[in-house]
Amino acid sequence: MVSKLENAMEGLIEVFHTYSSKEGDKYKLSKAELKSLLQGELGDFLSASKDPMVVEKIMSDLDENRDGEVDFQEFVVLVAALTVACNEFFVESMKN
Amino acid sequence: MVSKLENAMEGLIEVFHTYSSKEGDKYKLSKAELKSLLQGELGDFLSASKDPMVVEKIMSDLDENRDGEVDFQEFVVLVAALTVACNEFFVESMKN
Repeated sequence: MVSKLENAMEGLIEVFHTYSSKEGDKYKLSKAELKSLLQGELGDFLSASKDPMVVEKIMSDLDENRDGEVDFQEFVVLVAALTVACNEFFVESMKN
Repeated sequence: MVSKLENAMEGLIEVFHTYSSKEGDKYKLSKAELKSLLQGELGDFLSASKDPMVVEKIMSDLDENRDGEVDFQEFVVLVAALTVACNEFFVESMKN
């Protein structure tokens, strides 16, 4: 049986490849694919930001090797940072 | 509706707190809690390693601030590294 943690890890891999396989390098997210992933998977997060440049800024922050694409490792850094932020919010709300 | 990515992020937070709340600091994993998490959630991974010190080594690697406990941010670093390794395995098997 697959554990909850294995399930979560598998989910991250599946989400990435669902979007990365759409065009160009099948194993990397182009800017259009990243935008589509953020809108499809984190729509509430995106719409909470009033900044029209938010996708460009995320792309620029994530694309450490400056090849104009986001690979899986760069994607996991984003997810890790977002999850740590969500956890802090959750812990604070539990403490209050 | 919760997206697959949000679901995975929520899963990571839930797994951590399921184990971290068992004893001592409710928001950190003690060594016993980490061992219990690794055995309960990544049993196949642990049993694949023949090293009886594997839990001690993981604890020592993760516990960046040397307080003998693993906080959520330290835990996410482990999950991110494992997920990147799983993804590389998956991508290689897709290419072959």
